[in-house]
Amino acid sequence: MIRKKLVEQIQAKKSYLCVGLDTDISKIPLHLQSHPDAIFEFNKAIIDATKDLCVSYKINTAFYEAMGLKGWEAMEKTVAYIPTEHLKIADAKRGDIGNTSDQYARAFFETIPFDAITVAPYMGEDSIRPFLEYKDKWTIVLGLTSNKGANDFELQKILSADNNQSDFLYEKVLKTVAGWGSINNLMFVTGATQAAAFANIRHLIPEHFLLVPGVGAQGGSLKEVSQYGLNKEVGLLINASRAIIYASTKEDFAAAARNIAQEYQTEMASYLG
Amino acid sequence: MIRKKLVEQIQAKKSYLCVGLDTDISKIPLHLQSHPDAIFEFNKAIIDATKDLCVSYKINTAFYEAMGLKGWEAMEKTVAYIPTEHLKIADAKRGDIGNTSDQYARAFFETIPFDAITVAPYMGEDSIRPFLEYKDKWTIVLGLTSNKGANDFELQKILSADNNQSDFLYEKVLKTVAGWGSINNLMFVTGATQAAAFANIRHLIPEHFLLVPGVGAQGGSLKEVSQYGLNKEVGLLINASRAIIYASTKEDFAAAARNIAQEYQTEMASYLG
Repeated sequence: MIRKKLVEQIQAKKSYLCVGLDTDISKIPLHLQSHPDAIFEFNKAIIDATKDLCVSYKINTAFYEAMGLKGWEAMEKTVAYIPTEHLKIADAKRGDIGNTSDQYARAFFETIPFDAITVAPYMGEDSIRPFLEYKDKWTIVLGLTSNKGANDFELQKILSADNNQSDFLYEKVLKTVAGWGSINNLMFVTGATQAAAFANIRHLIPEHFLLVPGVGAQGGSLKEVSQYGLNKEVGLLINASRAIIYASTKEDFAAAARNIAQEYQTEMASYLG
Repeated sequence: MIRKKLVEQIQAKKSYLCVGLDTDISKIPLHLQSHPDAIFEFNKAIIDATKDLCVSYKINTAFYEAMGLKGWEAMEKTVAYIPTEHLKIADAKRGDIGNTSDQYARAFFETIPFDAITVAPYMGEDSIRPFLEYKDKWTIVLGLTSNKGANDFELQKILSADNNQSDFLYEKVLKTVAGWGSINNLMFVTGATQAAAFANIRHLIPEHFLLVPGVGAQGGSLKEVSQYGLNKEVGLLINASRAIIYASTKEDFAAAARNIAQEYQTEMASYLG
């Protein structure tokens, strides 16, 4: 999906919401757990209930891999079910040497036709290039993540070549990786729990789209992120997973998910003005 | 598999070789490509031909994911086929926030019963802890990788808290992560193409096992890595993938793979003395 189409979708729906399908068989409503195709049935109901309120779905591959073959099958079916106007993100955090990243790109851009994949930057340029080579696909590189562990490495100071100034590792990642792609094929993950850093992030990469997890269960503020993160072409995809899909654990789960998605959309519409 | 058993295997076979099953349908012998279970048949033949010469098999998950459901099935069957005395490594480079890493750990330690998984450190402690919580399993964290991209971030200098000295990012990773586990459940990936760094790596983590890719197709030297990397309990698993499994592209591929594995084993026996 090209950038222009993504921005149009956001403007039309007055929403930059991404719904995260972190579907865990032990957390879905009891009446569905014994269904032979439980994960897909749950996802289908969530998608039907939220698709007019969001512009993207993010599949957290870990939850599907944990179920083995059955999970992989549910992931394929879910991706096929998501309407084409939604940006389909594989939240896979992959990355390896070039010939291996080639295979990951094939897995998530061809074998399963996602529009975007999240990628870890640790191994550098040749681990990321193979994803960027796909036309009309998006590579979403980890910048500053929403978890406590962000302090361990991402928020360590890197010495510059002239030893005169220093950047946080995540800043070095944003600046370096931005040079490998364009605003049309590259986004960054920046956690909503890091709202204080958003002004600085926007200073470094004013035009890129940011994929922002951490609103909802992790406690990030939609208001703060929007205040500092929105740019002239919106530039934000804000993800909520657990807060939406597990809004109710009873038979009314889809309606409850819609209510929460509606709250986010209404708030987002107010920031889009 | 506990450390003691791994070391015993190495001493008994006079080998610290890991065979990497980066199995690519387009690269296996033509006569196998049309087999309904081609990937598994190829792996089975490679395992049969090399199992007395190596102590570990490493499955590069990307190659299996690229084939979708069929690939995932071949991965499960291959893991079930590998003899129990071999350390089974999922080369998956996973890592995400805690509740997601929980799911990856389940996927590769329970759903598919690997003994070990490779993990990316960028997201810090809570992304790695869930793997370390499994008893008798190994978490293998990326340290200094074998690819050119290692220069982009791994070999950037990190400022210490007192601003008086600096470490490379990979050194900071080795020192920090070493504190989260023990030599009994934690290994590090250090590329064979980085032989010059091995003396320093051994200085920082004298006792840990190192998983060393990059010998063979990537050009790393088995001799140099062994010279600087071996410790009193061996402490090395050296991986070769393409150099072994694609030694011949004809019907004699398994015998050819055995010949190359035998060469590595003979050289390793000489270093074990």
